[in-house]
Formats: sequence, C-alpha cells, structure tokens
Amino acid sequence: MPWALALLLAIPLQALAADPLPSWNDGPVKQSVIDFVTRATTEGGPGYIPPEERIATFDNDGTLWQEQPVVQGAFLLEQAKAAVKEDASLAKRQPFKAVLEGDVALLSSMEEPQLMELFAATYAGKTPDELTREARAFFQTARHPKLGVPYTQLAYAPMLELLQYLRAHGFQTWISSGGGTDFMRVVSEDTYGIPPQQVIGSDLKEKFDEGNGHPVLRREARLDHLNDKAGKPVGIEQHIGRRPVFAAGNVRSGGDIQMLQYTKEQPRPGFSLLINHDDAEREFAYQEKNGASLKAAREGGWTVVSMRQDWKRIFPEEGR
Amino acid sequence: MPWALALLLAIPLQALAADPLPSWNDGPVKQSVIDFVTRATTEGGPGYIPPEERIATFDNDGTLWQEQPVVQGAFLLEQAKAAVKEDASLAKRQPFKAVLEGDVALLSSMEEPQLMELFAATYAGKTPDELTREARAFFQTARHPKLGVPYTQLAYAPMLELLQYLRAHGFQTWISSGGGTDFMRVVSEDTYGIPPQQVIGSDLKEKFDEGNGHPVLRREARLDHLNDKAGKPVGIEQHIGRRPVFAAGNVRSGGDIQMLQYTKEQPRPGFSLLINHDDAEREFAYQEKNGASLKAAREGGWTVVSMRQDWKRIFPEEGR
Repeated sequence: MPWALALLLAIPLQALAADPLPSWNDGPVKQSVIDFVTRATTEGGPGYIPPEERIATFDNDGTLWQEQPVVQGAFLLEQAKAAVKEDASLAKRQPFKAVLEGDVALLSSMEEPQLMELFAATYAGKTPDELTREARAFFQTARHPKLGVPYTQLAYAPMLELLQYLRAHGFQTWISSGGGTDFMRVVSEDTYGIPPQQVIGSDLKEKFDEGNGHPVLRREARLDHLNDKAGKPVGIEQHIGRRPVFAAGNVRSGGDIQMLQYTKEQPRPGFSLLINHDDAEREFAYQEKNGASLKAAREGGWTVVSMRQDWKRIFPEEGR
Repeated sequence: MPWALALLLAIPLQALAADPLPSWNDGPVKQSVIDFVTRATTEGGPGYIPPEERIATFDNDGTLWQEQPVVQGAFLLEQAKAAVKEDASLAKRQPFKAVLEGDVALLSSMEEPQLMELFAATYAGKTPDELTREARAFFQTARHPKLGVPYTQLAYAPMLELLQYLRAHGFQTWISSGGGTDFMRVVSEDTYGIPPQQVIGSDLKEKFDEGNGHPVLRREARLDHLNDKAGKPVGIEQHIGRRPVFAAGNVRSGGDIQMLQYTKEQPRPGFSLLINHDDAEREFAYQEKNGASLKAAREGGWTVVSMRQDWKRIFPEEGR
C-alpha cells in the first residue's frame, strides 16, 4: 500500500525538500552531494542505486565530531588516572607514564595504534557492561577543555543533516572509525541516530568466560582489529558485506584514504567526501604532515569540504 | 502518526493472528515461543523488551536448513574438484586428497575447523566478488544428493515462519553460524529475509589490495574468526554489540551451546531454542557423540524442539 507509506514519509520529506542541508553554504560541494543523492534515487536514471546497496560509511573523529582532543583519548586519560589512583606503581609504567605526563596534548597527537595500546592496558579483563557503564559516566561529566560543553554536543551540524538526508533517501548510515567500537556504541544512537550494530571500529580480542553458569565476555589486552587505513575496507566487508557507495573522512592522519578510494573506485563510481579542517576561527585548523589525503582526493576526484567555506555553522548550538 | 503505521502493519498482523506458526504442531514448545513473544511485546508487562533490544540470533546448518550434507561442504567439494582439474598435482596434497577420497560423506562429518581449513585452501587470493559469483553458480546448479532439489529449498518451513513471526513483532533476526560469512550472505536475503549485514559467520583474514588504483579485498589462507562454540558470543558482540534475547541452535556438534547459554543466562532471561534431529522419516535422525547440547538444555531450561513431534511439516514443499 504505497499511499500509506507515502503518507508516513510525507512530513520529513516535505520539511527537507526546501533545503535538505541548511547548515551547508550553497556552492559546488553542497550541490554535488545533492546531485549524487538525486541520481542515486532516480529510478530508471543512469546513476540509480537500488535501496539495499545504498550503504554510506562515515569516519567518526574529525568527520562526525571534533577531534581536538580525540574524545576517546580524553576518556583513556581519565581511565589511566583512575587506574593509577588504585595502584600508584602504574604511574611509573608505560603506557601510563607517557600519558599522565603528556596529558591531553599527547593523546591528541597519538596515532590510532598507540591509542589502542593504551586502550588495551586500561580495558583488559572488563566486560561489555562494565565498559559501557564507564564510558557513560565519562560522557555525563566530561567537558571539552576549550569549548566547555559535553563532547556529544560537538558533533558537526552539517554532518548530522547529511546523515539524516541520506537516511531519508533510503541510505543505511554506518560509522567506520579507528576508535574503539565499544566506546562509540555508547553514544552513536543518541548522537547520530546510528544504532550500535552499525558501528565498526577497532577492537580488542574478546574471550568467552563461562562465569559459573553466568557467562560473560571479557576483553583481552590484545588487538583484534585495527580499523584504520587499510583496515577500514576490511572492517566494512566484515560487517556489511557490501562496498559503500558513499563515504566520508577527514584530513589529519591519512586514516581514511583507503576507505575513500575503495568507495570511489568501483564498477559503479561512488561518492567520496573529504573534510578539510581549515577553520581556525570556528573550530580548529590543522593539517596532515605529508598532505596525503588531499593529494589522494585530487587524484581520485573526491569532493573536498572546506569547513571555512562550505559550512554555514559548525556545531548545532551556534555562536561558534 | 500511529494510525498510518497501524494501517501499514494491519495486513500482515491480521494474517498471522489466526496462527502465526502454522507448520508447528500445537503443544508446549509452540506455546512457549508464542508466550515469550507476547510477553516481550506487552508494554508495561514484566517480560517487556524494548524494540532496540529485540535481537534474535540463529545458527544456520541444522537450525535454519538441513545439514546432511553440510551445504558449504558440498560447495567446497565442487571447488576442490575444480581446483584439481586446473592442477592435477593438488589431488595428492592435503586437504584436497582427503576431501576427494572421502567425498560428501567425509565433508558432513567434518567439524567446523577442518571445513575452514579446506575453505582457506580453496579461497585464498579471491575477492568478495569472485567468491560471490562462484557461490551463486553453485546454488544454481547443485542439488541435494538424496532429496534432489536445490539446497535453498531445504530451509525448514517452521523456522521460516518463526523468523517472520519474530520480525513482525519488531525482532531483528541475525544468523550466527560456523559457516563462512561470504557463502551464507549469497543466499541469506532470498532464503531467510536476512540481509548480508546481519550474517555472522567464520571468516578468513582479508587484505586490502591497492590494485593499481582499482582497490579490492582478497581473502588470505589464514583464519580470522571461527564462529563456533565460544566464538559465537564473541562474533555476536562484535557485530551487534548487544546480548540476544532469543537464540536458536541444534544438536550435532555442540557448536551452539555457548550462544544458547549466553542468551538464556543474563539479568533478563532470554529464550533459548535447541532443535533435536529425531525425524528419520521426514528428514534425518542424528545424535551428538557426548549428548552435551541436550544436557546443557536440561540444565539451562532451554526449549527443545523435537522435529518429529513439534513440526507439522519440515520443508516448504510438502510431501517430505
């Protein structure tokens, strides 16, 4: 009964029809996103994509929310401090020593593999429930050191609109991030409307513990999957089993290059979006050492977002 | 607009209301399934489960379709024969030698780890697209050696109804099987209504191959995850991030024990279903060497299905 379905969908579609991406400035970048989605959903047209193949994957840190500092880094610093409170001798041991001395600044410059090492040291032996509780507690009290608000308020308004816009057109939205899967799942639904089962991240190995008839899983201090660089397409295939037709990442570590290549280069060309952090005034301006992401974007014909030029506002609560 | 939603759902719900599980004989097993689903969906009641937590996981071989022979085993035998046709020297090497000599009978007695070894030998270096093509070709031509029909027609009618019934009540249905993920994804949607991203299975490691600007993934000859026994709860946590509230497995290798324990024993007791293959006339009667699954079922209070007593018919096309 398509008429009832149409009725159900009518209100969100009408509201979006005027301007589906109000936080994006008009221009070639916004237009190219809208053109892609329009072609993908135009039945009979040359760019039509059947609904089941409308898979969109998003990096998290620096793509969906701010990454100065990396949020999981700030969390791990708190975890490290708590562990040292319990056992003072840890303060002299690595990776705790480096992290406590370097504080948030160090954590923000750490690459994913190092972050995962700290993750392993603080997480080993814990169950999913424990990890969820600890992460929830962090999100309730933690505030961004410069902006003074909860981290979950620092998702990018234009990207929240883009997620919504894609979903309204039958796309499935997934996270594919170098961050820990457990950690992101705690906030993905409320922050982005992405349920836990659509979050792909890095993972420690996990062990089944019979627990005397009350079985639980426990993380081990060994990396299972690092969902960064070439690990991103691998994680996507593992979880989704389909090549994305849309992917978004950002400039900083080159961690999204392979995912964006994998999405763009295929029998049916996909849409690859790369966010450039060039807005020192409203967010943070930072670059990539070797410029590899921007170079790959030029060579691959990806769409590059200048936060300064292409975004009307950065965060949902304006002023910034 | 709940009235429009109700309208949309009205037809399937009404059709199911008379008897949601027509291929199940009336009795305590069928009743316990219906009671569980009724409680889970009764708002305000003591057994109510919010929609986002309605996760149901199903083993595949012997639970959703027949496993004499294991379907992927029959496929791997064909793959092994094809490989030997290309390179006759393989016939003298393991695991090819054993498989070619033992034929389907051997494959059906193989445990998942051995099957995965053969899987590795025949799959290494292939891309997801190649694997999909080969599996599709197999399903188009292969016939069950005794029953003479395509394997996809040998899904169990009562279980197809159960999947449908659960989905109609807001449950997400997932496969969690020891079989290869790639292989099952080829038929999961058409056979069970379960999309590829809701299939959890065993996997070989996968490598990102830059492919001169046309990147692809290729399987390696190393096991990444064996989704059997204690590996099942691990795979479930990795992919779903939530403990199932409903799980189904079967008697043969003990491969589902941990998943069923993990589902049943939790703060909110889940529903664990174990299928006993005791119907020599309409399907195949076989037991488990040490009887561990039935023992665990008695101790854990799981619901045991006797195919002979509890199922009115076995396969969608009756006569069998």
